[in-house]
Amino acid sequence: MTSLLRVGYLGFSSGAPLVVVDDDAAAALGVRAHDRLLVRRGGREVVALVNVARHLPPGTVLVNEEVVSALGVEEGEVVEVSPAPPPRSSRYIREFVLGSWLGPDEVRAIVEDVVRDRLSDVELAALVVAAARRGLSVEEAYHFSKAMVETGERLELGVRPVVDKHSIGGVPGDKTTLLAVPMLAALGYYIPKTSSRAITSPAGTADRAEVLMPVNLSLEEIRRVVLKTGGCIAWGGALRLAPADDKIIRVEHPLSIDPFLVPSIMAKKAAVGATHVVLDIPVGRGAKVGTVREAEQLARMFIEVGRRLGMRIACAATFGDQPVGYAAGPALEAREALRALQGSGPQDLVDKAASLVGLLLELLGVSGGKAVALEALRSGKALAKMREIIAEQGGDPGVRPEDIPVGDKRLTVRAERDGAVAWINNAAVATVARLAGAPKDKGAGVELHVKLGDPVREGDPLFTVYSEHSAKLQAAEEFIASTTVVQVSRPGSEMLMKSIVEPLLPVEPALAER
Amino acid sequence: MTSLLRVGYLGFSSGAPLVVVDDDAAAALGVRAHDRLLVRRGGREVVALVNVARHLPPGTVLVNEEVVSALGVEEGEVVEVSPAPPPRSSRYIREFVLGSWLGPDEVRAIVEDVVRDRLSDVELAALVVAAARRGLSVEEAYHFSKAMVETGERLELGVRPVVDKHSIGGVPGDKTTLLAVPMLAALGYYIPKTSSRAITSPAGTADRAEVLMPVNLSLEEIRRVVLKTGGCIAWGGALRLAPADDKIIRVEHPLSIDPFLVPSIMAKKAAVGATHVVLDIPVGRGAKVGTVREAEQLARMFIEVGRRLGMRIACAATFGDQPVGYAAGPALEAREALRALQGSGPQDLVDKAASLVGLLLELLGVSGGKAVALEALRSGKALAKMREIIAEQGGDPGVRPEDIPVGDKRLTVRAERDGAVAWINNAAVATVARLAGAPKDKGAGVELHVKLGDPVREGDPLFTVYSEHSAKLQAAEEFIASTTVVQVSRPGSEMLMKSIVEPLLPVEPALAER
Repeated sequence: MTSLLRVGYLGFSSGAPLVVVDDDAAAALGVRAHDRLLVRRGGREVVALVNVARHLPPGTVLVNEEVVSALGVEEGEVVEVSPAPPPRSSRYIREFVLGSWLGPDEVRAIVEDVVRDRLSDVELAALVVAAARRGLSVEEAYHFSKAMVETGERLELGVRPVVDKHSIGGVPGDKTTLLAVPMLAALGYYIPKTSSRAITSPAGTADRAEVLMPVNLSLEEIRRVVLKTGGCIAWGGALRLAPADDKIIRVEHPLSIDPFLVPSIMAKKAAVGATHVVLDIPVGRGAKVGTVREAEQLARMFIEVGRRLGMRIACAATFGDQPVGYAAGPALEAREALRALQGSGPQDLVDKAASLVGLLLELLGVSGGKAVALEALRSGKALAKMREIIAEQGGDPGVRPEDIPVGDKRLTVRAERDGAVAWINNAAVATVARLAGAPKDKGAGVELHVKLGDPVREGDPLFTVYSEHSAKLQAAEEFIASTTVVQVSRPGSEMLMKSIVEPLLPVEPALAER
Repeated sequence: MTSLLRVGYLGFSSGAPLVVVDDDAAAALGVRAHDRLLVRRGGREVVALVNVARHLPPGTVLVNEEVVSALGVEEGEVVEVSPAPPPRSSRYIREFVLGSWLGPDEVRAIVEDVVRDRLSDVELAALVVAAARRGLSVEEAYHFSKAMVETGERLELGVRPVVDKHSIGGVPGDKTTLLAVPMLAALGYYIPKTSSRAITSPAGTADRAEVLMPVNLSLEEIRRVVLKTGGCIAWGGALRLAPADDKIIRVEHPLSIDPFLVPSIMAKKAAVGATHVVLDIPVGRGAKVGTVREAEQLARMFIEVGRRLGMRIACAATFGDQPVGYAAGPALEAREALRALQGSGPQDLVDKAASLVGLLLELLGVSGGKAVALEALRSGKALAKMREIIAEQGGDPGVRPEDIPVGDKRLTVRAERDGAVAWINNAAVATVARLAGAPKDKGAGVELHVKLGDPVREGDPLFTVYSEHSAKLQAAEEFIASTTVVQVSRPGSEMLMKSIVEPLLPVEPALAER
């Protein structure tokens, strides 16, 4: 079961060692796709995952850059190839699929092999699907969180308490973090906020913040900024905090499920040394969580896992039936957040930020937390602190909302009849903003002129699309023509929410990201 | 969300359209690994699954042969690339993962997309794992069987009844089919037997039969041979009978689970037009099924699904704790089967073949089925029929057991103490035979000299390894030194079967193939 094969280069790097062989070579070796091969040259060897293809030159093995650098092999050289067993963690995943519970050692082995790219996507998908089918126990979620933290980098601030704020996401336009971080820092707390970029939404917190300041900080820079100002807003993607999470998301995403939501989030929070955390769970149509009852169940899991990790957690179920504030898209949102810090923000955004900060303050023993939070905003202290953070991260501390450039190609959609706003389609708002260019084109996005329940007359503007390119604006316009973004009707006059006919399928939950 | 990218060739075919882009191109398009891209050139377009790699030349998309032939695109040409939605069946799989039941339309959509290679391996793994976690309902198994038949080729013999025999596998040395087919044909029944080659075992039925005759028959050739002789033994791998099965096995294999066992087998039987089928379910340590009770549950599923498909099914739970007969490996097994047809076969092999054929005869209304089956063997009619089938398939009808060449590099392992044979390690027998060269080297394999319960004295031969190459014999010898292949002890003197300590994990079931 050993073959000698001639090396061809694939010419790219794909994270883990990968080889491609044809059917004949695979049959001779007794391997199939997703098995593993030990590849040897001289005294060096590497274990690679197997892809099986056709129409290769006979006796060829194609290798990616990971194999090339492990073996130092040249194109055309001959290597010795033989089957290699799967890692231990592959067996643990199989046992998990068949119904057994995972203990700390199995979880640790799985997470280590995830981080080292030693598991195939089929094995990762099996892990994710089995977890989605059964749900993780609190113990399992804790062990995953702990192992994810321990297999990554950590931020050590050397101070206590360290606070943090996180949203499980799913609602467009949620720029609450841009208010909460300076509010908490202005109140004297340390908040080393790391956040993500958008993948399927029009803007992530890192995209929004980047309109105001650089966000690509190293752990050392985060430490410096936070110890000086109390807060920061950095992109967490390259910091290797709980890196297993990023690999698990790679298979969760195509399946639109996220059974590792709790360990992923808790691991990121533990990795920055947080001691007190407020978690935002938006609830509503088009959000990840449909009812307050579901939010309560999820909250209990967060709180219990947090307790085991030595963190105190407060969770907030928040109204998620429409975007937060009026703007969706990096620059539009940064502008709206800055206006809110200046005292003229939309009521829902201000209430959400103050409620979340207030909950966290209560967790820290401060009574009347929401009032204290609102005062940090009203007094201008949060704005001053934001300018301090912007300066420390290398942005322009004097930036004014009206200085922030937004797309000059615009399109306004108007009401076609009198009535009230009955539904704002979160998913459609996100798609329109993305088609207009967000998040890559910072100035692209959607600005709502109305919110749920607002009365409108025929011809009133409902929303404006901003874009930097006419072709993208046109793509957004075509999409708008095919769907309902903002629905105007007499309240309660349209009773049918969705029709379900045979074959019976569940109402499709939103595709959302965390 | 549209990009213009320059085409590079991957230089192979992998079943379905595949493109590789780098992180930057993926981010610009808003796609991730396992998403899909619509690739356009001129008036032609194709939807391809996305792999994300690093270190590609900027602005490049690598494409496999399926994309090249769909678009007629040359290396270096520019194509227009944009995100494409997943097929409907991807949503059905997600709903199945989240707990909903699949109706006939969803199953049909899934199976069609499996056959057309429109689902990613992550989606296929999700389907397989969700099915393994919950188990398929009888209705779902029926719908999958039906859809698998309808999306493939079918054999139309134009006669009734058509009988068939199948084993779910897992026991080495099981050459029962080489007896059952000529026995049934000799009794006047039509049995168009298709079978598989070994992938992880030392020999599949197709490998064994190929020692005696060509097995690579087309559907037309199968039809001709069966209508003339009553039976055939052909390789089913290239016939496209229920081809969805082969793609599903591709992800079941690396996870060592087979939740689609029942639909896969029933679809293959329905595709050859079988009306009466006997199914062998080996039970025992190292077999797929551990207890008779489990075999009964599985049998009920087979019988119910068969009924809905218009087939009558008889199932047999058979003793699977040791190899069938004494030989494992293509030539050694073909020799043993031929000897059994000549009247000097091992008792267990003859009993198994007669029992299975007998059950099928009873299903057909023949009383005393087993006696009738044994008489077909004793009378020499089955041997004569086998020679007829061998002749029709293009083999040498006069072949004698002693003419069949077996490996001349040999190694005999002997008992190290007095006692009785307490355990024969099926998995180790298979590994030894494979290391010795089976199934590729037809003459390689293992011949046992003892079976369970046989008394042995120190120095008695336990088994002989046959190989065609000294290096392979040596690899087998090294493996034998590291494990127990045949365990000799005083019966019942060693009570501990397996120790289970924290962390609690289930006893590892055998890795087996169907």
